[in-house]
Amino acid sequence: MRKVAIAGVGMTKFGASEKSLVELFTEAALEAINDSGIKPGNVQALFVGNCLGDFSEGQANIGGFLASELGLPPGVPATRFEGACATASVAVRDAFMWVASGFYDVVLVGGVEKILNMGTPMATRTFAMASDSKYEVFSGLTFPGVFAMLAHMYSVKYNIPLPKLKERMARVAVKNHANGAKNPLAQFQKEIDVDTVLNSAMISDPLQLYDCCPFSDGAAAVVLTTEEIAKKVIDKPVYILGTGQGSAGALGRQKDYTVMQSRIASARQAYDMAGLGPEDIDVCELHDCFTIAEIVASECLGFFEFGKGSDALETGETEIGGKIPINPSGGLKAKGHPIGATGAAQVYEIVKQLRGECKDRQVEGAKIGMTDTLGGDAGTIVNLILGI
Amino acid sequence: MRKVAIAGVGMTKFGASEKSLVELFTEAALEAINDSGIKPGNVQALFVGNCLGDFSEGQANIGGFLASELGLPPGVPATRFEGACATASVAVRDAFMWVASGFYDVVLVGGVEKILNMGTPMATRTFAMASDSKYEVFSGLTFPGVFAMLAHMYSVKYNIPLPKLKERMARVAVKNHANGAKNPLAQFQKEIDVDTVLNSAMISDPLQLYDCCPFSDGAAAVVLTTEEIAKKVIDKPVYILGTGQGSAGALGRQKDYTVMQSRIASARQAYDMAGLGPEDIDVCELHDCFTIAEIVASECLGFFEFGKGSDALETGETEIGGKIPINPSGGLKAKGHPIGATGAAQVYEIVKQLRGECKDRQVEGAKIGMTDTLGGDAGTIVNLILGI
Repeated sequence: MRKVAIAGVGMTKFGASEKSLVELFTEAALEAINDSGIKPGNVQALFVGNCLGDFSEGQANIGGFLASELGLPPGVPATRFEGACATASVAVRDAFMWVASGFYDVVLVGGVEKILNMGTPMATRTFAMASDSKYEVFSGLTFPGVFAMLAHMYSVKYNIPLPKLKERMARVAVKNHANGAKNPLAQFQKEIDVDTVLNSAMISDPLQLYDCCPFSDGAAAVVLTTEEIAKKVIDKPVYILGTGQGSAGALGRQKDYTVMQSRIASARQAYDMAGLGPEDIDVCELHDCFTIAEIVASECLGFFEFGKGSDALETGETEIGGKIPINPSGGLKAKGHPIGATGAAQVYEIVKQLRGECKDRQVEGAKIGMTDTLGGDAGTIVNLILGI
Repeated sequence: MRKVAIAGVGMTKFGASEKSLVELFTEAALEAINDSGIKPGNVQALFVGNCLGDFSEGQANIGGFLASELGLPPGVPATRFEGACATASVAVRDAFMWVASGFYDVVLVGGVEKILNMGTPMATRTFAMASDSKYEVFSGLTFPGVFAMLAHMYSVKYNIPLPKLKERMARVAVKNHANGAKNPLAQFQKEIDVDTVLNSAMISDPLQLYDCCPFSDGAAAVVLTTEEIAKKVIDKPVYILGTGQGSAGALGRQKDYTVMQSRIASARQAYDMAGLGPEDIDVCELHDCFTIAEIVASECLGFFEFGKGSDALETGETEIGGKIPINPSGGLKAKGHPIGATGAAQVYEIVKQLRGECKDRQVEGAKIGMTDTLGGDAGTIVNLILGI
């Protein structure tokens, strides 16, 4: 298989937007195409992630409308993916294969979501569809509840008293807000402190408001191409070195939710393909939909031993400048989480980091980066390893 | 790229079902796996099409739940696709690439849909989301209206008086019901005559009830593998010789809906990849969501000159035994149309035809077959060419 390069990236500002799904995606896609130096007419296929357009705009089958808006001709296929919050990452991994295989030389891939126009009750309900509809959603479980249970399990399993764990969880939010404050595309660009989190409204015990990522509108896009073309059109191609994807069923079928098997399997695939290990990763964008989620993810990816992930919040190892900087973009927590776009936005950040274009939030000398996205109750997990 | 073989196929009976999406897909998937002679533990990835599970069951992110039900381990990725009525065909084309590229040796791919529990008004509304939400759906257009306009355009453009065209359209329904009557998995297994159509309720002028395919529940699945493995496990591998996919925007951006550019481009891709032309196709399953849709599709695929497709209904050229038998399964019209499953069900029929397993509806000596699925207003089109 051929080496696959990322020649261009684009991303809208995350947060509330008056634009439509088509308009949002087009903004990110055109930026990515311009960034790549590849002519729009050379785009051979479009892969796009979108979760809830059916609900937010009554728009399914969105691929063709996006292709049309971008002026792509009728022979350019446009494929929509949905894997809950991992949606865009699934699209990127899939697009990777179409270039790696030699079938296409230039593909556009990304994701888009509009949530805020639905309002919080409808957004919460539609997000919950990523859990098992028959047993979980039906019994009233939504994602704050899923991750609240995870926090309790983590506290008990590793014998970390809940107040101590909550403070460490709060530090995830503090770190990611500090990073987001340096990201002009982040939804929240303000620093907070531990007290901000611990004094915020209770959402689902023990998760408080600032333990939770926001609802967001936004889009992100990436142009994938061959090594040969990338070297011609841009100075600093970033390469996709490894990809992995795992799956899982309902929570009741997962033995221990603190040790997510689908994520462990996915990460191992990506590491094996890249010929790398956790110790080789210089920067990581991972799925901090809730503060506890970042801690658990950092363990499943192998950055810390199981049960030790929360310690890193006290030592600062996951801050920019630490052993393994996590979510320098601000993460889902501060950058925002337009679910169908998040995976592509993670790729955007890692590409910018590896190119050294992140200014105040730059991880100095980063050469290898990783993304991690979780859909549903770990039902869909995707990992990508990128390098220069 | 490697040659890709279809080692096994499975399909539920189409029509109303009490089973859930997961149960329906599992039934088809296990049949496909058993048919293939490949052990379930050797399935390396799952690709699945589903359009409206978010609405019919409140279930998104369905891939992981299907993988779990099938007992697939957490390292097996499960990807959901949505491209309106072309959903499952997009999944098959994508799965093809993962095997052709050499990345996976055995993948399971298919589609599933439940519609009937939603009832006709909700089904009609959710189907309409595959049209442009801002201008078409918003102004009240649903698919019977889209294809009714197509029939009027066709009548005027080719100067075929509407009564004459309507009789020919009725013959599409008569033919497909005759075929469906010989298909034990078809939703409607009864023959009708021209009067049945012309005396049925008016739906959207000039389309009457029997010009329209039904709402359906159902699932279909296919096991793809390498030529080498297929030859070991089964007697008659069928190969994917060509694939194509096209896209289009809103109706208002399509110059002439009787000459669908996305379908013409898609078919050309498939023919070119296979090194074949329309004259080489022995049997075709194409997208007869409405009777006029079959006529237009048969022209876009190159079986007849533009404007001449309806003549074939008088000469019998598209019947079993004719020049190019179309929809021997009964098509969407009689076999049924569980939208997210339809593309995989078309593949099921063509595989059975090429293996010579279709009994009363067998197209004798068929060696090359083609599928064609249309999503939305031709927004997503996929064609596959299969051969032995």
